[in-house]
Amino acid sequence: MTDSTFLDEITWTSDGLVPAIARDAKTGTVLMMAWMNRESLSLTAQENIAVYWSRSRGKLWRKGETSGFTQHVKSIRLDCDADVIVLDVEQMGGIACHTGRESCFYRELQNGKWVATDPVLKDPKEIY
Amino acid sequence: MTDSTFLDEITWTSDGLVPAIARDAKTGTVLMMAWMNRESLSLTAQENIAVYWSRSRGKLWRKGETSGFTQHVKSIRLDCDADVIVLDVEQMGGIACHTGRESCFYRELQNGKWVATDPVLKDPKEIY
Repeated sequence: MTDSTFLDEITWTSDGLVPAIARDAKTGTVLMMAWMNRESLSLTAQENIAVYWSRSRGKLWRKGETSGFTQHVKSIRLDCDADVIVLDVEQMGGIACHTGRESCFYRELQNGKWVATDPVLKDPKEIY
Repeated sequence: MTDSTFLDEITWTSDGLVPAIARDAKTGTVLMMAWMNRESLSLTAQENIAVYWSRSRGKLWRKGETSGFTQHVKSIRLDCDADVIVLDVEQMGGIACHTGRESCFYRELQNGKWVATDPVLKDPKEIY
């Protein structure tokens, strides 16, 4: 029986979720933000592999299960309000985004328009 | 009249908000996550100073208004689902957290417990 006290200290949303930000532990790049429920955070802490909760599919989302681009978790941090998580991860394959880019945040606001600034590293058709 | 097309491309929550992650542009440290509505993101883009929406107070939150610890915005990024923002900022005073720490994510999960690992740089009583 694992001690789950640390889960009780989190301020979950009314849906029982907490936002989790994944950051590349080496480069500091923010890779993505997804959501976790108690079970996914518990599994992430046990296995040191990022497991999210897919709101669209309504089930656990073992990141990289299909693509192989898993996230090896180096640290799990909690903010002052206990309602946001930051994971420092090693991103397998160097690709976190389903578009084949390193980061999901590949668009930058330039002169009032969102401009895709980051390269596609691998064709998504070859990933999934 | 400013072109606000970029605001229309965002997938706002049912409350009209989007989560915004602030990252230190130089060190890559994730400083905090807060929320923005259309007006706060529009102001942030115009002024290059981070303006959030305080859900608890129900009003615009000009970060650093009281403390002086404003965030000068270097870039604004949007993710693939268009529902999360990342700001790269220069954090005035080097303190983003109301506890007087650099980052709000000052607790790390160690052996099943949240441990405060980051130092208090300034007594909050002297900040507010």
